[in-house]
Amino acid sequence: MSDKGISAAVIKRLPRYYRYLDELLEKDVVRISSKELSQKMNVTASQIRQDLNHFGGFGQQGYGYNVEFLYAEIGKILGLDQKTGIIIIGAGNLGQALANYTDFGRSGFFVRGIFDIDPQKIGRKISGICVRPMEDIGEFLKGHEVKIAALTIPRENAARVAALLVSCGIRAFWNFAPTDLHLPPDIVLENVHLSESLMRLSYKLKSALENSVRTDGGDEKIEA
Amino acid sequence: MSDKGISAAVIKRLPRYYRYLDELLEKDVVRISSKELSQKMNVTASQIRQDLNHFGGFGQQGYGYNVEFLYAEIGKILGLDQKTGIIIIGAGNLGQALANYTDFGRSGFFVRGIFDIDPQKIGRKISGICVRPMEDIGEFLKGHEVKIAALTIPRENAARVAALLVSCGIRAFWNFAPTDLHLPPDIVLENVHLSESLMRLSYKLKSALENSVRTDGGDEKIEA
Repeated sequence: MSDKGISAAVIKRLPRYYRYLDELLEKDVVRISSKELSQKMNVTASQIRQDLNHFGGFGQQGYGYNVEFLYAEIGKILGLDQKTGIIIIGAGNLGQALANYTDFGRSGFFVRGIFDIDPQKIGRKISGICVRPMEDIGEFLKGHEVKIAALTIPRENAARVAALLVSCGIRAFWNFAPTDLHLPPDIVLENVHLSESLMRLSYKLKSALENSVRTDGGDEKIEA
Repeated sequence: MSDKGISAAVIKRLPRYYRYLDELLEKDVVRISSKELSQKMNVTASQIRQDLNHFGGFGQQGYGYNVEFLYAEIGKILGLDQKTGIIIIGAGNLGQALANYTDFGRSGFFVRGIFDIDPQKIGRKISGICVRPMEDIGEFLKGHEVKIAALTIPRENAARVAALLVSCGIRAFWNFAPTDLHLPPDIVLENVHLSESLMRLSYKLKSALENSVRTDGGDEKIEA
């Protein structure tokens, strides 16, 4: 299976397909047509066919898709077919939430360690894992196969901590700190900027409320 | 200030501008040129000028942008100039993390209530707010001005809870449940699907590792 030339847009949709297929598997659904899948996912059937055609002939005319097979294939493309170790930097509420998130284990991700600088948090157990002091990180990563670090730390520490982790062999950052990390080109990054997400929601809400006022009051409409 | 005809792509970038301007304000920066801002944000200066031109003449040739003014104007566009009440449904780690996230208050968002169905969580205080039972939600929303609900609950309850909240007047959902909500057209939604975000990171990591192997091993390159 090669993923040459797959557009970023398709890649972005794959996790959503994966989630839906997971739900279907849970309901013991064996096969599904692109039409049924499209109704569930609220995208067009032709979009689904186009997207999944990138990965070869998973679907068959008149049969549809074999759910388990498609789920496994998309999982392979996303790299979920192997166990991937994660460390969490920052044992606050968000770090704890990630550590306790059982869904991650189902997708092949396992929390190998949790680190903090706060003496009050060090030594506490989260989801069965003891919080370690940050100064142990170098030794720890020598002895453990970990490529992904989740950063749930304040933004003022994020750049320094990320640089340290890169020097210890971390190749991927799941960044929750509200700042943009500037990383070497071979290091990958996925940001979860919660404040920005909430601001986008705020904008949508404001637009919707203005729209409803305008619709109530006359024929003016917003174009945004 | 009108936001007619602003593209979704520009709207998506506004929270990032807002975050950078906030950092500049903290450092007491009074004005900044589009060139300086572009270097910081790693986008082109012409992109920045184009984006900000949508909102009228904030910038002046040879002067640049007044940081405080631009910050305030973008804040207004995003609806951050007014206090917005939020309720959090689900007092687990993620709900607690959101309740404790001090940055939200700085952007005008205030947690008005936290709700759960778990008797062990009800009555506990999080960030000074007492966790209430879900059955009180209707009464509570009659007496409090709240338009946004953050859902940090399991996916199997999300659709039912969202429908209940819509009937109680909630107009915007910040959805952390790993499922797609189907809402009436006048209700707005912003999803934070953590599992999907981690899968995207996993895909990027897999591609980067394959790329480095290929680069080490020969001249083959991936196009994705």
